[in-house]
Amino acid sequence: MNNIQNYIKENKDRFLEELFDLLRIPSISSSAEHKDDMYKVAELWKKYLLAAGVDKAEIYETKGHPAVYGEKMLNPNYPTVLVYGHMDVMPTDPDELWKTNPFEPTIIDGYIYARGADDDKGQSFMHAKAFEYLVKTGLLKCNVKFLLEGEEEIGSQNLPEFCENHKELLQADVILVSDTSMIDRDIPSITTGLRGLSYWQVEVTGPDRDLHSGLFGGAVANPINVLAKMIAQMTDEKGHITIPGFYDDVIEVSPTERKMMAEAPFDENSYKKAIDVEELFGEEGYSTLERTSIRPTFDVCGIWGGYTGEGAKTVLPSKAYAKISTRLVPNQKHEKIAELFKKHFESIAPKSVKVKATYLHGGQSYVCPIETPAYKAAEKAYEKVYGKKTLPIRRGGSIPIISTFEEILGIKSILMGFGLESDAIHSPNENYPVEQLLKGIETIINFYTFYGEKK
Amino acid sequence: MNNIQNYIKENKDRFLEELFDLLRIPSISSSAEHKDDMYKVAELWKKYLLAAGVDKAEIYETKGHPAVYGEKMLNPNYPTVLVYGHMDVMPTDPDELWKTNPFEPTIIDGYIYARGADDDKGQSFMHAKAFEYLVKTGLLKCNVKFLLEGEEEIGSQNLPEFCENHKELLQADVILVSDTSMIDRDIPSITTGLRGLSYWQVEVTGPDRDLHSGLFGGAVANPINVLAKMIAQMTDEKGHITIPGFYDDVIEVSPTERKMMAEAPFDENSYKKAIDVEELFGEEGYSTLERTSIRPTFDVCGIWGGYTGEGAKTVLPSKAYAKISTRLVPNQKHEKIAELFKKHFESIAPKSVKVKATYLHGGQSYVCPIETPAYKAAEKAYEKVYGKKTLPIRRGGSIPIISTFEEILGIKSILMGFGLESDAIHSPNENYPVEQLLKGIETIINFYTFYGEKK
Repeated sequence: MNNIQNYIKENKDRFLEELFDLLRIPSISSSAEHKDDMYKVAELWKKYLLAAGVDKAEIYETKGHPAVYGEKMLNPNYPTVLVYGHMDVMPTDPDELWKTNPFEPTIIDGYIYARGADDDKGQSFMHAKAFEYLVKTGLLKCNVKFLLEGEEEIGSQNLPEFCENHKELLQADVILVSDTSMIDRDIPSITTGLRGLSYWQVEVTGPDRDLHSGLFGGAVANPINVLAKMIAQMTDEKGHITIPGFYDDVIEVSPTERKMMAEAPFDENSYKKAIDVEELFGEEGYSTLERTSIRPTFDVCGIWGGYTGEGAKTVLPSKAYAKISTRLVPNQKHEKIAELFKKHFESIAPKSVKVKATYLHGGQSYVCPIETPAYKAAEKAYEKVYGKKTLPIRRGGSIPIISTFEEILGIKSILMGFGLESDAIHSPNENYPVEQLLKGIETIINFYTFYGEKK
Repeated sequence: MNNIQNYIKENKDRFLEELFDLLRIPSISSSAEHKDDMYKVAELWKKYLLAAGVDKAEIYETKGHPAVYGEKMLNPNYPTVLVYGHMDVMPTDPDELWKTNPFEPTIIDGYIYARGADDDKGQSFMHAKAFEYLVKTGLLKCNVKFLLEGEEEIGSQNLPEFCENHKELLQADVILVSDTSMIDRDIPSITTGLRGLSYWQVEVTGPDRDLHSGLFGGAVANPINVLAKMIAQMTDEKGHITIPGFYDDVIEVSPTERKMMAEAPFDENSYKKAIDVEELFGEEGYSTLERTSIRPTFDVCGIWGGYTGEGAKTVLPSKAYAKISTRLVPNQKHEKIAELFKKHFESIAPKSVKVKATYLHGGQSYVCPIETPAYKAAEKAYEKVYGKKTLPIRRGGSIPIISTFEEILGIKSILMGFGLESDAIHSPNENYPVEQLLKGIETIINFYTFYGEKK
């Protein structure tokens, strides 16, 4: 056991205690009632950064939830690393499916169960602890900046403006982000591509009030029937999205790269079993891994309308709603997709209803080059800890701010994720293995060692 | 002003007070939390019947909500009338659209606003008051039985068994029901045809838990997308229902009868304006009045699934649900339609999801002959009070128990309704004009006078 491993082992219990205090704060950014919790989590992060050894740390107000910034500037000749993470979490519903209280972290069989255990409290916390070690031991050979935001789960709405206003403050050679997953717990892998996102809420209005389905049924367009037909025709039977112009900017991935992707270990049967489905469904002509990484998607994330209570109510409802998202791939611009969708949605609406499509948020896709010193240092760090070759992988999730960083600050990000597919992020029973937490800290420490040597 | 009108005028305030006490009880039969209110409303009805002059009144337990029976048997040579009504009401959601408290009846400009003001507390109450007058004045020349049930809005689930067990008790020459509408406030009309109903709850299950739409989106069937496609293909672009066999038993109405129907006063523009839609939609080849009376329908009464809260949650949901109803026309049997739907729904489900269709309830359609003494008496009573010819009309609503009465008891019902289209039954701001309440009482008194003379 080396010095790093010894330090982690000795401090493990304290690390967990500190992380648990972070996880206990229900910092759900999408919910107005948790506004105060966003300040509580920011205060705690500020405290943790100062304790870990930054020279200064500050809470910044935005138009939405606050952000935290902290820095340790050692030497202008050292490379500068900007660590980005987010303090906010997703809502916890459906609550009845949680085995434990989502805001009372509980360790079961080596897994930490809590909302945010992985995404992103657990993962961003590793950076504070890696930094703490490097400061304490005097081994830090980088300048380090931390930026923790409070709105990632609602599209990082105010972070672009924050970046615009603090370009100098945030200047760095590379951005480090731990908010992604590895292929498997023993396959070190770094995400080099992310999908973008467009997210709408749509509303279909039929009659101006709920009507009796017997008296009016048959003669008045039912907004749920209509919305179902509108959603149905947004994709065809081959899993293609039918919005005109939707694929125009998609760059087809080369056969060579697709061949490389096909070599990643993937077992369709265990994939199906893990989510309990008999058959998979996706775009014709693409594999499951491709469908979740290099191809765009169309998913209804939520739908509601009419009577949804107990028993039967014979109503012809006035309104129907849906929350609709598409994942986007490199070169598709979310603003353009937002317009295409809105135009199409309005154009296919029959005259018997009124429709409204509200764009809730969006983010661009991202590609990370793998020939940079920072990527190489990350690659090497994983290999040292996991003892295997590090694979570059493309993933289907979106971290909209990553492309914004590139646009506004001109800095590329390295996505050093340590999550696992089984972490159930955004779902009930989100969890994070203690093992990944500790190995993550170790890997990040190694990154700094390799990267600090480079400049 | 005749004696009947005088009595009604003198007692109007008391009538309203009594009705209001009935309306104040939130007897929502579909909601378990209102179970006690079903007993409260039954107690009050028993009290009202005794006060009005029945010889005996009793509350009968069923497997569900209680029923009330009362009778006054004057003379075996008199014809016997069974009055049927229901004590239960629909839920009140969406509550925010009510201008008044739905369970605190309020008169505004001559309209009583309350849940149940028309359907069916207001309408059934008229029978108690008409009966009261006839008993007090000694003019009653019929035997009268009252049956008030507590489960009409949830499909009268336990009333068939009650009828089977009390065939003798319920024996009568005719059943009188006030639970329908007139064409307009100055056009006396009696409903001679009603649609049947089949009502299901369906459930589509994709993955066994909500998934991250970025990580899994594109490769796993989304149950909301799937449900939308399944609903969409249940009807075609011409408004036809595509469930195989669905129309097999429908008897086409004769061109002559359709011609007669077309003569009923109907203004499409004011119809559209009243519900604020620009265009109507329904089955090709049929008029609006036909679509709501002689043709079956397919309406999604409610839909839900995935994230329906504030803001955006990027989730690929595990489940999607819908409440689906079809209205049926004479000769379609709801049990057969129930089977056809279930079979079809299961057959069109892709293998990527699991589906479940639960039959919540159903009822047969009904046709009333217009040559019987009872119908003639009703026709004459309306003409006397409204001063115009009474029209027989077919309506789109369902009162499942009406055909059950015919099947089990062998008795036809006369649907002496006094509601108006504008009463907003099953909707927010349900109301009933005081004028219709009082004219209804007067008409019913006249019915007994004409009918009692006949036997």
